[in-house]
Amino acid sequence: MLALAALGGVDIPRFFLALATILVVAKLLGELAERVGQPAVLGELVAGVVLGGSGLGVVPEAGVPGELIHVLAELGVLLLLFEIGLETDLKEMFRVGSASLAVAVVGVVVPFGLGFGYWAYLPHPATGEGDLTTAAIFVGATLTATSVGITARVLSDLGRMTTREARVIIGAAVIDDVLGLVILSVVSGVAAGAAITTLGVLRTLGVAVGFLVAAVLVGRFLVPRLFDLIVRMRVRYVLPVFAIAFALGLSSLAAVAGSALIIGAFAAGIILSGTNQFDTIEHEVRPIASIFTPIFFVSVGASVDLSLLDPTSPAARGTLVVAGVLGVIAIVGKLVAGWAAPWVPMRRLVVGVGMVPRGEVGLIFADIGLRTGILTESVFGAVLLMVMVTTFVAPPWLKALFGSTGAGAR
Amino acid sequence: MLALAALGGVDIPRFFLALATILVVAKLLGELAERVGQPAVLGELVAGVVLGGSGLGVVPEAGVPGELIHVLAELGVLLLLFEIGLETDLKEMFRVGSASLAVAVVGVVVPFGLGFGYWAYLPHPATGEGDLTTAAIFVGATLTATSVGITARVLSDLGRMTTREARVIIGAAVIDDVLGLVILSVVSGVAAGAAITTLGVLRTLGVAVGFLVAAVLVGRFLVPRLFDLIVRMRVRYVLPVFAIAFALGLSSLAAVAGSALIIGAFAAGIILSGTNQFDTIEHEVRPIASIFTPIFFVSVGASVDLSLLDPTSPAARGTLVVAGVLGVIAIVGKLVAGWAAPWVPMRRLVVGVGMVPRGEVGLIFADIGLRTGILTESVFGAVLLMVMVTTFVAPPWLKALFGSTGAGAR
Repeated sequence: MLALAALGGVDIPRFFLALATILVVAKLLGELAERVGQPAVLGELVAGVVLGGSGLGVVPEAGVPGELIHVLAELGVLLLLFEIGLETDLKEMFRVGSASLAVAVVGVVVPFGLGFGYWAYLPHPATGEGDLTTAAIFVGATLTATSVGITARVLSDLGRMTTREARVIIGAAVIDDVLGLVILSVVSGVAAGAAITTLGVLRTLGVAVGFLVAAVLVGRFLVPRLFDLIVRMRVRYVLPVFAIAFALGLSSLAAVAGSALIIGAFAAGIILSGTNQFDTIEHEVRPIASIFTPIFFVSVGASVDLSLLDPTSPAARGTLVVAGVLGVIAIVGKLVAGWAAPWVPMRRLVVGVGMVPRGEVGLIFADIGLRTGILTESVFGAVLLMVMVTTFVAPPWLKALFGSTGAGAR
Repeated sequence: MLALAALGGVDIPRFFLALATILVVAKLLGELAERVGQPAVLGELVAGVVLGGSGLGVVPEAGVPGELIHVLAELGVLLLLFEIGLETDLKEMFRVGSASLAVAVVGVVVPFGLGFGYWAYLPHPATGEGDLTTAAIFVGATLTATSVGITARVLSDLGRMTTREARVIIGAAVIDDVLGLVILSVVSGVAAGAAITTLGVLRTLGVAVGFLVAAVLVGRFLVPRLFDLIVRMRVRYVLPVFAIAFALGLSSLAAVAGSALIIGAFAAGIILSGTNQFDTIEHEVRPIASIFTPIFFVSVGASVDLSLLDPTSPAARGTLVVAGVLGVIAIVGKLVAGWAAPWVPMRRLVVGVGMVPRGEVGLIFADIGLRTGILTESVFGAVLLMVMVTTFVAPPWLKALFGSTGAGAR
């Protein structure tokens, strides 16, 4: 194999060593994050910053190894959204119903509006004046999506998954995720250079929602029957292999249909959550996802240019100012959402705080914005800081609100 | 993500669709193979032939997508050898002892000698005369390694794992695998252009055995203690992630030490089989390996040029003749090994037949030979046919020898 390595364009031993380092450092810093009461995903982002180009330079960025990491990271985010789709119980979603929907919609509209307004009409350090361009849409979009993964993890860590507040939060976070994915389609279309007309936005919305609805309707009917056949196969591990092949295939189909890869992956997860083999699929897909998703978070973290966060440089001060404003918008925008369903008796501050942590989807928006050049590295850095701040702030705040009668930090 | 795909060098939706197709066709043809009483790996090889360049052309071969498939296939073979290492019980190996060792050594020496002699000194269709070059070493090497995976799978399918013959076969197949890996190191060195001197061969042997012994000795002492610490971490799926990172890291180290990547992976498996978390590691690594290993077998199958197997063309007739001779050598060479331990009472023909199926390692030799240009495509095709023939012939033969009193074909 040594000989093979020398022949190909890629130095395979070196690439595998980088991969091993990424996985180990991601898990170690994830652990460190958990030990200090924070979600593991934060540690993985920090691992990316440490291992990235402005840190130790371990994450391959250029040439074929860079492409490889990029594709593995895409696989990671695809499997992550697939997992989130798997965890989405459509019936539960309909049951928590009105309160979750109201919380989700307000929690998307308010932060988006505030973020868009700030970027479009108020002076900010990047330009010294308002900037009514597609960048404003991206800035607004990055503020919308609550991380269902982070929220669920925090609530479960606190032993509070069965409270009414938790049900509303999880329901809202899931709807929020779907809304986020729709916004992602629009934003992807914008990034691809589609002109922002009302008709265009509606069309993109229609394609995104239509693909999701059509895929889920057709899929929920056909796919469980298909998997009842597949499970009768004798070869080993047919379920995870077919499940992942299904997610890959539906993702490609979504992209071809003009939607986003991860919408296909999410739809694949929702569809497979209706199969009789759901438990086995989730059980066997998780370890596979656990290998790839850290690569995504590390590669996102690796995009951060540390020098932008240096408070002694004027440019970095700009980034920090923007991050501060976005952080306030992000927190206030979601807290307000806690009061969006006055007809349901619940502790509204708890719901609002539960919606605060941002995650995957916001980072994906920011990543697209950075790669297409719509967002500058400085704004990207600010968004990453905003995501980190919201994710940092929620767990201890929730813990304090729930009091110390629960299962504690673990 | 659509937008991202357009930016990078890789058409990601298209690549993911190819990946999905590879996985689905591999599993379907693997299933078909099992249904007709053959090992699934055969179906995966055939899937590669069908999807490869001389078939439907689905497997990416050129450019960055080709490199990607190559790296994923390497990950697949690495994880496969890691799994085989995990299944290797060092104590069991020492217990079956002398008989297994004798069977293994004879089963390596005889086929290698016959294959080398055939290629070096007898006329064959490729050249019309003997060919005393490094090609003869490769041809011999491809004949040596019994596929421990295929053998174990067949015996377990027959419900005969607890017979003395089965124990000797498995022990011998494992030793045989280690010998095969050592030969692989020599062959890799030869492919990399190292001159074949006795000193050179001994040095390569020394490095390979030395690395394996040193890694296993140091690893068996240190790594269980390390994993006792790792298992106390709170983040999800630390065991499979650290296990795979360990396999990747040790593989790179093996390559840097002048040995082969997969020797490192095999050593990593043996080392981790001594941890207290062995069960969980094996349980969670298997689904991950199940995604990557079919990519390896499919990409091996995809290397076959179908036109070489067309009996109406003279070149293909040459390939078929060579495949026939190699097939006879492969079968006779291992049958003889059944009689290598006369001091142990056992059904010697059963042991011989059990050693017949070739697999992974032989294909890896052939693959290195093809990529380095030492083997022609015709010889590569002949070796693939030989592997297929030996793998085809053993399961029904073993079944017939054991009679119909066992658990049947399933």
